[in-house]
Amino acid sequence: MSEQHLHPPVSVLGLGTMGTALATALLGAGHPVTVWNRTQTKADPVVAGGAARAADAAEAVRAGEIVLTCLLDHTSVHDVLDAHTGALAGRVLVNVTNTMPEESAELAAWAAGHGIDFLDGGIMAVPPQIGTHEAFVLYSGSRRALDTARTALAALGDVRYLGTDPGMAALQDMALLSAMYGMYGGILHAFALVRTGGVSAREFAPVLARWLGGASGLAVPTAEQIDDADYARDVTSNVTMQAAAYDGLCDLARARGVDPLLLEPFGGLLRRRVTEGHGHEDATGVIDYLTTTTSPGAHA
Amino acid sequence: MSEQHLHPPVSVLGLGTMGTALATALLGAGHPVTVWNRTQTKADPVVAGGAARAADAAEAVRAGEIVLTCLLDHTSVHDVLDAHTGALAGRVLVNVTNTMPEESAELAAWAAGHGIDFLDGGIMAVPPQIGTHEAFVLYSGSRRALDTARTALAALGDVRYLGTDPGMAALQDMALLSAMYGMYGGILHAFALVRTGGVSAREFAPVLARWLGGASGLAVPTAEQIDDADYARDVTSNVTMQAAAYDGLCDLARARGVDPLLLEPFGGLLRRRVTEGHGHEDATGVIDYLTTTTSPGAHA
Ligand SMILES: NC(=O)c1ccc[n+]([C@@H]2O[C@H](COP(=O)([O-])OP(=O)(O)OC[C@H]3O[C@@H](n4cnc5c(N)ncnc54)[C@H](OP(=O)(O)O)[C@@H]3O)[C@@H](O)[C@H]2O)c1
Ligand SMILES: NC(=O)c1ccc[n+]([C@@H]2O[C@H](COP(=O)([O-])OP(=O)(O)OC[C@H]3O[C@@H](n4cnc5c(N)ncnc54)[C@H](OP(=O)(O)O)[C@@H]3O)[C@@H](O)[C@H]2O)c1
Repeated sequence: MSEQHLHPPVSVLGLGTMGTALATALLGAGHPVTVWNRTQTKADPVVAGGAARAADAAEAVRAGEIVLTCLLDHTSVHDVLDAHTGALAGRVLVNVTNTMPEESAELAAWAAGHGIDFLDGGIMAVPPQIGTHEAFVLYSGSRRALDTARTALAALGDVRYLGTDPGMAALQDMALLSAMYGMYGGILHAFALVRTGGVSAREFAPVLARWLGGASGLAVPTAEQIDDADYARDVTSNVTMQAAAYDGLCDLARARGVDPLLLEPFGGLLRRRVTEGHGHEDATGVIDYLTTTTSPGAHA
Repeated sequence: MSEQHLHPPVSVLGLGTMGTALATALLGAGHPVTVWNRTQTKADPVVAGGAARAADAAEAVRAGEIVLTCLLDHTSVHDVLDAHTGALAGRVLVNVTNTMPEESAELAAWAAGHGIDFLDGGIMAVPPQIGTHEAFVLYSGSRRALDTARTALAALGDVRYLGTDPGMAALQDMALLSAMYGMYGGILHAFALVRTGGVSAREFAPVLARWLGGASGLAVPTAEQIDDADYARDVTSNVTMQAAAYDGLCDLARARGVDPLLLEPFGGLLRRRVTEGHGHEDATGVIDYLTTTTSPGAHA
């Protein structure tokens, strides 16, 4: 294999915090990297690190076998690329800008209309994690684009290809972020609560991180109950008990001057499960109150 | 050291799912174990495993150098032990029944009044994890009780002693549970959302567990910002951006027939941060809206 084949040239458009981390990881993996950013000075650090500076977006597009966009949002991707569809034709476009599933689908259709091989990506990492084993990136869209770009993309983090539906990476990205915000709200509540007992956040953080790290494994048995719509199997803690304990958690917070507003909605759903006759089941059944469709695989 | 000293006799009162797991782990570690449960038949499995069956709670108390209670709640602990304060005097009582901090403090005072060496515990594990490296137990109260019971307690899971304040284990236990429920709500929302794209929960669970496991480490940098009340340092993602993205998460859910009621309260707090001039800071500052006291270490 030629050197070009092993390390295809990559262009990175958008050098914010994330784009800069991506370009740096690609350079580290041995790819020729060309960069462009609207505000030119932001390219200086990666140029000092070995990247070629493109005079404009058109030059950047032409320099890359793989064109990686890491911009602000869906609109900014069109702002930057719409004038360069001719140069993009026949190249692989990987867009890791945060987009909604419907926007990713729109970009895929636009790319197909111009002969551009399109892959959408959702980065599940913060910039310092890029290039480490802690980072993973969800991709969906053209399999051929994935095959061409795979070694380059592997330099950014674990590659997780989710199939040809271009909106799939964005959908799962949004779901993961949603879950993280649930956890984050819980973390802030927990810190506020222990503070009432004179415990600093630094002191509590290691045990909290360990606990949540372990509890994240809950997703797996919960998933089995959800797919089988069987919330009464392998119940380790029934809803009646949990609803009572949950009220206790909220009462304790209130008694100590902590507003349990981030916890309360879940408590309401637990109580509703009990009222509606599901007290003997696991709490997983709460999912039936979140969605208007309960059958797995149904499209809303 | 005598065999008795290495493996002091332990009595377990309460053989629900958890008490049974505790007694089993103690037997496995080589302790002489005596058991008692209100409903006697529940003792059969552990008696078959080598435990001695006490005829009543009094006999169980007398058989143990360490008396471990794992009952339903605070009231049930008094129901079982109040008649046996004479026999308990001079022994170590470790109560791992779920209690509120104020209830643990009450039990500690009651124990002190009867010459009972008292340690309160909060089990951070489900029964199948007992005796594995996945389990840890928070303890607070008498250090002498801890020293006497430490090797026995190590058979249940990692021993985490939080000092002499008897309510401290319960407080941190409640905080950890609160955080877990935040995460659990996020997990259910995430499963509901990906289902709208035809993704089964089983398919999504591994990536969700991996993501949350990694994101649990967020607790550590968040803690530093909280203790220093400095939400503008090391900002990786500012509140203005997050508030906008968060509205997008909720809108996407709604558009797909998923009720974002578990996520919404956090979004309201993010928007309030922006309105009140903290848009350039990290989202950590949301904690100021949860608590009426902002200085670390302040007692509400
Ligand atoms: N940072 C993270 O933790 C993280 C994690 C996962 C995903 N992401 C995603 O990665 C993308 C970039 O994030 P970031 O943290 O690097 O953001 P950032 O630091 O704010 O950078 C934004 C980039 O977009 C460019 N841009 C915005 N509007 C533009 C337009 N109309 N035309 C041309 N360029 C435009 C900016 O150029 P100027 O320099 O000229 O303003 C800048 O290069 C976002 O979609 C974000 O959601 C970020
Ligand atoms: N299971 C878990 O995942 C878990 C995790 C952490 C902490 N915990 C805590 O561990 C404790 C026990 O939980 P578990 O899961 O073992 O519950 P469980 O299976 O419901 O067992 C409850 C036990 O309490 C006894 N009991 C209740 N009221 C009593 C009374 N008034 N007098 C005498 N005995 C009484 C029951 O005796 P009978 O058999 O006669 O009814 C039974 O042995 C609880 O405080 C729980 O919060 C449990």
